[in-house]
Amino acid sequence: MKDLKSYIRTIPDFPKDGIMFRDVTTLFGNPAAFKHAVDAMAAPFKSERIDKVAGIEARGFVLAGAVAHRLGAGFVPIRKEGKLPHQTLSEGYVLEYGEAVLEMHLDAFEAGDRILLVDDLLATGGTAAAALSLLERLGGDVVGCSFIIDLPDLGGRKMLEDMGEKVITLVEFEGE
Amino acid sequence: MKDLKSYIRTIPDFPKDGIMFRDVTTLFGNPAAFKHAVDAMAAPFKSERIDKVAGIEARGFVLAGAVAHRLGAGFVPIRKEGKLPHQTLSEGYVLEYGEAVLEMHLDAFEAGDRILLVDDLLATGGTAAAALSLLERLGGDVVGCSFIIDLPDLGGRKMLEDMGEKVITLVEFEGE
Repeated sequence: MKDLKSYIRTIPDFPKDGIMFRDVTTLFGNPAAFKHAVDAMAAPFKSERIDKVAGIEARGFVLAGAVAHRLGAGFVPIRKEGKLPHQTLSEGYVLEYGEAVLEMHLDAFEAGDRILLVDDLLATGGTAAAALSLLERLGGDVVGCSFIIDLPDLGGRKMLEDMGEKVITLVEFEGE
Repeated sequence: MKDLKSYIRTIPDFPKDGIMFRDVTTLFGNPAAFKHAVDAMAAPFKSERIDKVAGIEARGFVLAGAVAHRLGAGFVPIRKEGKLPHQTLSEGYVLEYGEAVLEMHLDAFEAGDRILLVDDLLATGGTAAAALSLLERLGGDVVGCSFIIDLPDLGGRKMLEDMGEKVITLVEFEGE
């Protein structure tokens, strides 16, 4: 297998001008790269007795489902507004290009459950912070966060670490 | 572990009046039930040399990511309109409550790749048929389809089997 970063495709000006979109579908499509990414996101938490892996819609679902299965944990969806069928808790946030709301089922887990948050990309950390807020408002014990991509110029990793979170990332795109 | 069906929650009148929504988030959240479902969806294809597992947005992503990892395959996203960043192929379809378009990247796999389609629920089969059409228009060799839930009253399973597909489902809701 080549370096993990080489499997990520960069698409300029998507979804709007000036954004260099990091496309992980090319990584997901390669069996060795996908397996490596999932295993590397899960490995630091193998001895942590994770109860649930929470994934952020939609790319995060792909990774979180696989990481949950790998760790023998349950999966919890964190979705865009209006998608979950039962009673939810909501959290608004600002993201790299726009604003949005995340929701989680009120009964997604039990207070005290040990939770790993998974998504594909860490940019400003706004999405992750909103997800962490939902998990913590329901009494979750967040053990850490795993992402494939870190954009360190945007400061998300530092913000999450300053909040006391353990943060795992596999690939960096910096000053590009 | 109890019977798999008992982990699925039914929510009446979601997303609109008269629909009995089968909520798999309660199954996903239970570690034993989630592991059992993923393993049972993958098991019939373990000796089939699957190259890619295609998942349908969004609940299908959770399962397809885990099944792809389990089978040592790549993952291919089939998404709602306008979500994929690169060049796509589109297919319109009618679903249980409304109409929609599915898209897949033109370079999602190579012609001749052996593909397993994964989603959470098989109802009329409209969504699955649109996904199969995308896979086949790009030259994919579709080996089969795996779902958690079958609603046999709606005829999707029969339609897919009449098209020659191998169909795996784990739980039925009939006449309820």
